[in-house]
Amino acid sequence: MRTEHEAAASLLVLGKGTVGSQLLALLADHEELRLVGVVDSRAVVLEDAGLDPRAATSTLAQAEPRPPDLGPVLDRIASNPVPILVDVTAAPGMDRLYLEAFRRGIHVVTANKKPLAGTYATWAALRETARAHRRAFRYETTVGAALPVVRTLQDLVRTGDRVHRIEGSLSGTLGYLSNELAGGSTLSDAVRRARDLGFTEPHPGDDLSGTDAARKAVILARELGHEVALADVEVAPFVPADVLGAEGDRLWDALRAADDVVRQRVEDEIGRGLVPRYLVRVEGGHLSVGPVAVPPSHPAAAVTGSASFVAFYTDRYAAHPLVVQGAGAGGLLTASGVFADVLAIAEGARWA
Amino acid sequence: MRTEHEAAASLLVLGKGTVGSQLLALLADHEELRLVGVVDSRAVVLEDAGLDPRAATSTLAQAEPRPPDLGPVLDRIASNPVPILVDVTAAPGMDRLYLEAFRRGIHVVTANKKPLAGTYATWAALRETARAHRRAFRYETTVGAALPVVRTLQDLVRTGDRVHRIEGSLSGTLGYLSNELAGGSTLSDAVRRARDLGFTEPHPGDDLSGTDAARKAVILARELGHEVALADVEVAPFVPADVLGAEGDRLWDALRAADDVVRQRVEDEIGRGLVPRYLVRVEGGHLSVGPVAVPPSHPAAAVTGSASFVAFYTDRYAAHPLVVQGAGAGGLLTASGVFADVLAIAEGARWA
Repeated sequence: MRTEHEAAASLLVLGKGTVGSQLLALLADHEELRLVGVVDSRAVVLEDAGLDPRAATSTLAQAEPRPPDLGPVLDRIASNPVPILVDVTAAPGMDRLYLEAFRRGIHVVTANKKPLAGTYATWAALRETARAHRRAFRYETTVGAALPVVRTLQDLVRTGDRVHRIEGSLSGTLGYLSNELAGGSTLSDAVRRARDLGFTEPHPGDDLSGTDAARKAVILARELGHEVALADVEVAPFVPADVLGAEGDRLWDALRAADDVVRQRVEDEIGRGLVPRYLVRVEGGHLSVGPVAVPPSHPAAAVTGSASFVAFYTDRYAAHPLVVQGAGAGGLLTASGVFADVLAIAEGARWA
Repeated sequence: MRTEHEAAASLLVLGKGTVGSQLLALLADHEELRLVGVVDSRAVVLEDAGLDPRAATSTLAQAEPRPPDLGPVLDRIASNPVPILVDVTAAPGMDRLYLEAFRRGIHVVTANKKPLAGTYATWAALRETARAHRRAFRYETTVGAALPVVRTLQDLVRTGDRVHRIEGSLSGTLGYLSNELAGGSTLSDAVRRARDLGFTEPHPGDDLSGTDAARKAVILARELGHEVALADVEVAPFVPADVLGAEGDRLWDALRAADDVVRQRVEDEIGRGLVPRYLVRVEGGHLSVGPVAVPPSHPAAAVTGSASFVAFYTDRYAAHPLVVQGAGAGGLLTASGVFADVLAIAEGARWA
């Protein structure tokens, strides 16, 4: 037990990976938020009086393994003040759990793109169930980590602005690779450097396919009311298609084999005064992600290194698009954004 | 009476100028928000059942003139669901009214910089009283209109990031003038064009002195915990000091007299490969506003026209600062930002 005064919010944290452990470290400095449970794929630890966030991971590791049955867990945390389910896993199928949470009066904060980029019916059910049960459903970190992207878009929409187009460089990895190519690097060297810097997944193909960026396009487009899903996104991968099929060491052979054709494309773009980028685009109901060459005056051209960027072109921002940019990936930034979502719910609950 | 179901929030709007009339137009499309009163300097109109926002301004104009005694007005609106005082005036001394509102359980949303950039004691009392009475106090539009600046900074601070430096181009007028000078215009031509485009106050000296930008520096620095006030800001005006003292037509003579020295400075900067800007800077407890020449790689260099821009340099955004930019001035954008603040309170109140 950490505190005797009433908690501003009570958290059940799902997942203890990179984001989860950073989130627990942030919670340790915040007395008003009570950690009432942690869950991973093998065990559950619950304590209504509050767990010490610093010790939660090791407590969980020592817990008796049992496949978590989360229905009773949700029942139990629902009776705590301002209960919030926090999903920092990357697991599929969590949407069913979110629906159960809303029905029990539990708020949901998630960093997990999958439930938000699944079928449109799933997404609509999540939004409608949260609304019907008057619960918060926040997922700022599913696009650009802690950068204010989702909330900014929601504010545009609900204050009645008309968003004509969204453009973003929303993958730290592909942003980095684009800048490396523009600087003269070969594709294979750039990917190897990105992997060594920890930017890519263990299998870099997951980044290079553009699927992750396509999920973000879906999440943004749905805020505009478009009834779209992943299959509606026109996806051009960052690399030639045959590279994506290559496994293990064969990936590096395939990347080297693609070096010349990519080099030629980039040199051609630079020769025409353009800057290579990998952009997410939402315009009307049309969603696309892929390599694009932009003029130096384009806001994406100024983005350096692995930074993310998003521009909203709207009626009210006709003269100058609303642009947000900065570091938009990584465990600490994602945990910070999740934490900000949690604090916003705790703040709102104080106003009652 | 516009609606029979319970309102999500009840608004008392102070001020019916450019921002106020745009706000009323936005409210007209939003059934859940009930306009329970409008106030200007000469009259008050109250209607617990809800006023038609489209007609509110003319109703106010027809109301019997009486100097508003706002204590009883606050008492009356306090009993409505989720009461919010919305200040879209630019009047001084409104802080006393906000304190009275908080004490009665009324939330406050303001676009008025003056109460936020007054004495530090006033600011601290506002924050503390809002907190003690568990009321929201939102003022996003006091810096950069509807751009997500204040909220973004608040999220950085309360999630435990350390903000080392804030830089911003936070005056639409001075941003425009900087870009005109960089493009070869003379000072006097640029100011005349800004006035003709409606960017400046009727007396352009109010913009050129830097006082408005200095207020924004104070508002941002206080979010970082710095106990500062306007007198602590090192202010270098946009124009030579003698221009600021000139009244009426003499202003234009004074501007023309300053053309050559300003031209010389800008040409010198451009010759050194730099870009002229007018920046707000907060670094540690040091606040400054003034003309600055930045290298082309600086994020402010890419800002075009009258757009605003702010960059946060923090521990977590060490590699890539968090940058927000876009149109950051004007009645409609300010009204939109006020509206978003109101909707955030209504949303939070639903979670109770």
